[in-house]
Amino acid sequence: MIFLFTDFGAADLYVGQVKAALHQVAPEARVVDLLNEAPAYNVKAGAHLLAALAARIPAGSVTLAVVDPGVGGTRKAVAVLADDRWFVGPDNGLISVAAARAKKSDVFAIGWKPPSLTASFHGRDLFAPVAGMLARGDRKAARLEEKARLAQSLGADDLAEVIYVDHYGNAMTGLRASGLQRKASLVVEGHRIARARVFSDVPPGEAFWYENSIGLVEIAANSASAAERLGLGVGHVIALEPG
Amino acid sequence: MIFLFTDFGAADLYVGQVKAALHQVAPEARVVDLLNEAPAYNVKAGAHLLAALAARIPAGSVTLAVVDPGVGGTRKAVAVLADDRWFVGPDNGLISVAAARAKKSDVFAIGWKPPSLTASFHGRDLFAPVAGMLARGDRKAARLEEKARLAQSLGADDLAEVIYVDHYGNAMTGLRASGLQRKASLVVEGHRIARARVFSDVPPGEAFWYENSIGLVEIAANSASAAERLGLGVGHVIALEPG
Amino acid sequence: MIFLFTDFGAADLYVGQVKAALHQVAPEARVVDLLNEAPAYNVKAGAHLLAALAARIPAGSVTLAVVDPGVGGTRKAVAVLADDRWFVGPDNGLISVAAARAKKSDVFAIGWKPPSLTASFHGRDLFAPVAGMLARGDRKAARLEEKARLAQSLGADDLAEVIYVDHYGNAMTGLRASGLQRKASLVVEGHRIARARVFSDVPPGEAFWYENSIGLVEIAANSASAAERLGLGVGHVIALEPG
Repeated sequence: MIFLFTDFGAADLYVGQVKAALHQVAPEARVVDLLNEAPAYNVKAGAHLLAALAARIPAGSVTLAVVDPGVGGTRKAVAVLADDRWFVGPDNGLISVAAARAKKSDVFAIGWKPPSLTASFHGRDLFAPVAGMLARGDRKAARLEEKARLAQSLGADDLAEVIYVDHYGNAMTGLRASGLQRKASLVVEGHRIARARVFSDVPPGEAFWYENSIGLVEIAANSASAAERLGLGVGHVIALEPG
Repeated sequence: MIFLFTDFGAADLYVGQVKAALHQVAPEARVVDLLNEAPAYNVKAGAHLLAALAARIPAGSVTLAVVDPGVGGTRKAVAVLADDRWFVGPDNGLISVAAARAKKSDVFAIGWKPPSLTASFHGRDLFAPVAGMLARGDRKAARLEEKARLAQSLGADDLAEVIYVDHYGNAMTGLRASGLQRKASLVVEGHRIARARVFSDVPPGEAFWYENSIGLVEIAANSASAAERLGLGVGHVIALEPG
Repeated sequence: MIFLFTDFGAADLYVGQVKAALHQVAPEARVVDLLNEAPAYNVKAGAHLLAALAARIPAGSVTLAVVDPGVGGTRKAVAVLADDRWFVGPDNGLISVAAARAKKSDVFAIGWKPPSLTASFHGRDLFAPVAGMLARGDRKAARLEEKARLAQSLGADDLAEVIYVDHYGNAMTGLRASGLQRKASLVVEGHRIARARVFSDVPPGEAFWYENSIGLVEIAANSASAAERLGLGVGHVIALEPG
């Protein structure tokens, strides 16, 4: 299986071109859109989202991971094998949190060059063919060369910020719930927020935090948009109160 | 074929996780997004939309149907075989209109338990694996137990409300067009709306109602957004004038 | 492979019904969403977008191309074989720019009639089954009859207008970059815009034009929305200054 994790937009004309390129190299592979609305240009938020999702990605699969504001500049292309999952994308930090948290991760430079490479769409021209080669099990075609480490790394630590707001208005943070006391409160944009186990445990409209389905601390409201009520957006800083 | 009918969001990171779960259980099945933008938390609107779409779903297929504001609470999981189409989801009324309108429908409790179940994402953890088992034809794995009826039912009757607004600004209602006189007018939000056969039969910008492609009464405007012009939204009540 | 190029909406309930219809006729075919958010009702913008994308569509594939404000009226259905790629859709100009720019293109009337045809959704009822037949290589089933030309044609020339705004806020024009001097400036909505090679060559927030990944002149800004900053939308006229 090949997963897409990008900021290319779920509704735009980019993802279809990436899939056409993937299918030409790996006609048998399943391609699944994991997320194509990662916060645009935001490598840090994307890196923490991808790390949380990585545990949900089946072993043996390939993830094309592209949030790439520096496309056409000097950043390198990279393939990382982390706990038996391939990640292919720019070496700009996006894959680094998932790699740093993996039990085992190997980093490879990509030696393969596409016959033609546009300045703005390496996702289609470079990363998709390489992801297709790896999905076919053809590491040789991608001309991978093992290297010591990623050029850019954000490390394994949590990020005390909002990293994603979904269409319900739930705000995910870069904090893993396993690291928080159940009694802890969050403070964000002047609001103090306590924990609940699940949506139906609080009155309609009330905000709370809980461990979401990918293990992150998420701020939500029962049958309402927490982001709208509390004025939350990607990048807003979270403070913790031990409770 | 497996169809998805959910309020998980077309652009968010939920549908991809559901598909990963489906493909792991039923690697050969086709998965098609029927609608992932059913009105959020709105079981009633979703139930009427799903019932209208059901006739368009090929026999022999499985539909994962999840609009589930009570996830993590006490509502049960259910599988319904209605006119040779499986529906899998929460027993909260969502599947009930389609079931009530079917010529024949059988209701089953789901006995299978997932190895781990998050409080907020039964779509991925429970309903997707069961839908995959049924798509494989493996009713036994899902541990289905026939039961008398759905716990929650909205019945077979039409719903005189707006149930969906599409990106063109067309407003679908829960009224089936087959039950309306052609001369009937609708009254909604203070506007009286007459029938036309098709968009190109009215002047640009003018609002009308017509039988849409899934058999419902829909309020539209030629090359314009009826919802914007008339101030329509999901839940707005429709009155009928026989004309 | 079958590609979808429509204004049906990426998030609505139309594309899934088209795919169900395609899979029933051509169960083995891959179906890829190229773009389902072509500007609504806008045949001219869609025609120029499709022509630019056509070169990126693999030879031997079938594209279902539907932007169809006149659905249910008198326009005809058409299949065009242009440089070994099939395009199936309304004969309203949408396919005409791609056809006019192809080295070789053959135009066919579609003789096949669906068992039932709604007035508003020929994409599902007519074009999808025909696209499926052509994807299976079954030209006979579609009852194609060669004809002299398209009923409506917009010709091969460029269009000096904004034809698409993506979710980053980049504004694509109907101008092919190969026809422009590198020193040329664009003037749009009172703003004069110079060229840059790539996003990272200009300061954050600054607007520029560049050759985008499908060969068109595109107005963008580094890590910002050019459309928002400059007030750009589909249909806005571009003037050229040779520089």
